[in-house]
Amino acid sequence: MNRLLALDWGSSALRGAMLDDGGNVLEERSFPRGILTVAAGEFPAVFRTCFGDWMAHADLCLIAGMAGSQQGWVEAPYCACPAGFHDIASQLMWVDWNGPGRVGIVPGLSIEHAGVPDVMRGEETQILGALELLSLADARLVLPGTHSKWASVEGGRVVDFSTFMTGEFYALLRRHSILARTLPEAEPPMEHAAFGQGVRHALGGPGLLNTAFSTRTLALFKRLESVALPSYLSGLVIGEELKSQALQPRQTVLVLGADALAARYAQALDIVGATVQQVSAGVTWRGIRAIANTLR
Amino acid sequence: MNRLLALDWGSSALRGAMLDDGGNVLEERSFPRGILTVAAGEFPAVFRTCFGDWMAHADLCLIAGMAGSQQGWVEAPYCACPAGFHDIASQLMWVDWNGPGRVGIVPGLSIEHAGVPDVMRGEETQILGALELLSLADARLVLPGTHSKWASVEGGRVVDFSTFMTGEFYALLRRHSILARTLPEAEPPMEHAAFGQGVRHALGGPGLLNTAFSTRTLALFKRLESVALPSYLSGLVIGEELKSQALQPRQTVLVLGADALAARYAQALDIVGATVQQVSAGVTWRGIRAIANTLR
Repeated sequence: MNRLLALDWGSSALRGAMLDDGGNVLEERSFPRGILTVAAGEFPAVFRTCFGDWMAHADLCLIAGMAGSQQGWVEAPYCACPAGFHDIASQLMWVDWNGPGRVGIVPGLSIEHAGVPDVMRGEETQILGALELLSLADARLVLPGTHSKWASVEGGRVVDFSTFMTGEFYALLRRHSILARTLPEAEPPMEHAAFGQGVRHALGGPGLLNTAFSTRTLALFKRLESVALPSYLSGLVIGEELKSQALQPRQTVLVLGADALAARYAQALDIVGATVQQVSAGVTWRGIRAIANTLR
Repeated sequence: MNRLLALDWGSSALRGAMLDDGGNVLEERSFPRGILTVAAGEFPAVFRTCFGDWMAHADLCLIAGMAGSQQGWVEAPYCACPAGFHDIASQLMWVDWNGPGRVGIVPGLSIEHAGVPDVMRGEETQILGALELLSLADARLVLPGTHSKWASVEGGRVVDFSTFMTGEFYALLRRHSILARTLPEAEPPMEHAAFGQGVRHALGGPGLLNTAFSTRTLALFKRLESVALPSYLSGLVIGEELKSQALQPRQTVLVLGADALAARYAQALDIVGATVQQVSAGVTWRGIRAIANTLR
């Protein structure tokens, strides 16, 4: 009866795992019921439909992700950094679903830089899971994505983080800018040389507002094949992101994710001389379990 | 019979002016016949329809702008920097329109930075016109726009320039990014304080990939009113552009343009401590006349 139900309720998907006493995944489920598909007030019903049967066998369910946002089940206020397992556990937002067992929503994190707030929601659980997986208390991490997050962890607590809209900028430039006229419509296979060329040009350039234009001129002057341009542009935006990280040579960076995008970050980090450690998926369940363990 | 026909044939508009011996504008015309509306091979006919009557009274017509691009009347190869009046005049691309008088297309400029080309087409004529207007041989200039151009002039020749896709990035973020959900759909009046806040945040921040996200978080935390967000975002992108210019305190920067956008650049340049000199429109005709004078 010490089973734990771990949920990752994001914008577009609802995923869940049943974990046993030892944290092993007994079963997983996934539903196309991201919070954008759930009307206000309908969250308890969707939860019951998707996971009600599991709650008969678990005394606790923790939910990470956008379910705690303004558009989610209930708004779970951000937990201010520095924040670790205990800080987050103490700010869980408990909800009522008219069923047995406790259901808590994991708060996101917030921080201020020069009077400007930054936020994450869901990534904090992945970060904690990676720390748990690797038995680390100090780390520098990147979570690549539409909005990449860079985080610094000291003594088991997230002490700093920043958001970079890298994936979104790539998509905007790729599909909606003047560059879209030059780039092939279909996505060609990754070209590692062109990607590296983009990373290097960004690292030495005066910023993406300028370097993005080189995607056009290199095509205009026939210096890059059309099929290489998407990889080059991807290198430009990821290189721009890395440029602002002030990484030390051979500094270890944990890349959370095992997909093609994480592989690109690994290549780019190698160019700037960092040591890359890729951490595959599954860290969300570990993070939720680590938070749950502080409650028991 | 020493009248000069000066044309600015851009992507979306065709403008022309008849200049007398002294360079005074006798008459101006404008047509919605940008090169994007003209099929290949139809350029001489459009020219005849719009300006054939004027050519009976002029012995020379020079055309600046996209008419010299691959999609234009005929491709006028870029003139490599450093380039001044004589360099450009010697590379005019003469075309045949089956009528009296000579018709030449002004070439754009090209330059290489770290093996990557940059180009301009049309702006070179405005720059030369501003030099002529102000009797300057040395200057630092910015031509704000969808693709801003920064240029350095020494001894009457453009020795360096760079393109910044600032206006386009603003439009992409304003209309197509996640920020569009937070920003008001209609364009509210300019908010100078919010604009300045954006400029300052960009100047001190780790790059636009990060600072753009603050448009969302400042709204999320109710630190900026919705109506101030477009001005703030505009300040972010223009501040990002200025950040990479390494301007000296009290350095004079010529801002070519007298519109609302040029006024924003003036405000941003004032924040970085530069001395602004705004140069109003009409410089294209002066530039064309200066090029023509080297031929006579």
